[in-house]
Amino acid sequence: MNFTKQKPLILVTNDDGIMAPGLRHLVSLAMQLGEVLVVAPDSPRSGQGHAITLEEPLRLRKVTYSLPVEAYECSGTPVDCVKLAKNVLLKTRSIDLCVSGINHGSNSSINIIYSGTMSAATEAALENIPSVGFSLLDYSFEADFTQCSKYISKIMKEVMTNPASPFTLLNVNIPKLLEKEIRGIKVCRQGNARWVEDFVESKDPRGQSYYWLTGKFVNEDAGSDTDVYALEQGYISVVPATFDLTHYKQLQHWETLKEIQIDDV
Amino acid sequence: MNFTKQKPLILVTNDDGIMAPGLRHLVSLAMQLGEVLVVAPDSPRSGQGHAITLEEPLRLRKVTYSLPVEAYECSGTPVDCVKLAKNVLLKTRSIDLCVSGINHGSNSSINIIYSGTMSAATEAALENIPSVGFSLLDYSFEADFTQCSKYISKIMKEVMTNPASPFTLLNVNIPKLLEKEIRGIKVCRQGNARWVEDFVESKDPRGQSYYWLTGKFVNEDAGSDTDVYALEQGYISVVPATFDLTHYKQLQHWETLKEIQIDDV
Repeated sequence: MNFTKQKPLILVTNDDGIMAPGLRHLVSLAMQLGEVLVVAPDSPRSGQGHAITLEEPLRLRKVTYSLPVEAYECSGTPVDCVKLAKNVLLKTRSIDLCVSGINHGSNSSINIIYSGTMSAATEAALENIPSVGFSLLDYSFEADFTQCSKYISKIMKEVMTNPASPFTLLNVNIPKLLEKEIRGIKVCRQGNARWVEDFVESKDPRGQSYYWLTGKFVNEDAGSDTDVYALEQGYISVVPATFDLTHYKQLQHWETLKEIQIDDV
Repeated sequence: MNFTKQKPLILVTNDDGIMAPGLRHLVSLAMQLGEVLVVAPDSPRSGQGHAITLEEPLRLRKVTYSLPVEAYECSGTPVDCVKLAKNVLLKTRSIDLCVSGINHGSNSSINIIYSGTMSAATEAALENIPSVGFSLLDYSFEADFTQCSKYISKIMKEVMTNPASPFTLLNVNIPKLLEKEIRGIKVCRQGNARWVEDFVESKDPRGQSYYWLTGKFVNEDAGSDTDVYALEQGYISVVPATFDLTHYKQLQHWETLKEIQIDDV
């Protein structure tokens, strides 16, 4: 890798794969702010969460990208991409910013937990690389990513120049609106919405059942301070996120478990 | 499914797969407390995090288990197992407790985020099923799971009879000690330890490089209130966990992003 140290180094990844238009648009914006390294899955890896590849070896292949940046496709998950970028491709050169996306579809609310895009950003954050995941609420391959360009550029700049603290991670979701219709940015908590799921059952030619996951996103959270609410109102939602999953409010309650002693059990 | 409603219904899953001794031991303990349904991956799925299967159909096959319980193996991830149990096998019958494990190896600290065992428990919790993931700090297939049996039974009972609040999720890690050596239970926060990673590079017969992930667990957290510390001291660690990833302490800091308006960008 031949990156200079004069400019910030920005790692760009995603979960929709190296061919995704959302990735290309994010790369084009990152190029305006620094030197760019792209490491993305060689095929779509949506819903991979924080999966890593342990049972198989990983492949990493340099590719000619449609923009003049150094780019690699990886056989593994989005989280694997970040690990390989850091430990194999860059080693001693530090990463100044990691951006993941632009995801084709929402990662608001509970989606953050299933999302490969957000998990890649999380992996960077836990390595103390300031990190942002971007998602547009449009699943289409032909989604118009240009309408939110100026906001994305500004958020990247803000995070690079003014990290809140070590281990910064932002979950940014963008409504499917024209630039002039976007009402601004809201800083939010993660909404307590969820998927009400169903499985479609079919039979294969041998008569064996198989199931496809399907579901409906349901918001049961009445708060006006959530990401889901902000998006409904036409705002870009920003949720500062963490990988410390401790439920601090419940610590006290479970103190009773300490009373379990070997004599009692 | 022919479960009575007289007894609690306990769903048991894991990420080491349906053949794992740790699963079998957890099933044997759950049988003492209620009716048991086992749905586990058909092969080991460690490190799958919160991955779900979207690009392929899922298979679910009834198997004859080594204990007299209803058991299914699933072609998907641990999270898929929970979704299939709830939505395909049980539908209207509610689940009183979900237990995941006993994992062969630690899920303390940051391991929770990579762990299929813990992600299955998380999936249950976000469906408002009281849920516990159990892990023993012994990766061996022949690990002795009997030494912690009484503690596990007691924790399961506590959670079923006294849920702290909706959406309970406990991450329980158990030191590799004899029963008489275990000093008790500590309720902890998630330690801020992490993996310092490396990739072993090899060449395939065609001369192409491939990489295996490897790494060393490093605890940089000096706190004596962490799960890592409790385990080192010979205690069973219990971390109440959440799927709300909002970094509440950083909300205020990022309020500055609200100032970004379309005229500025």
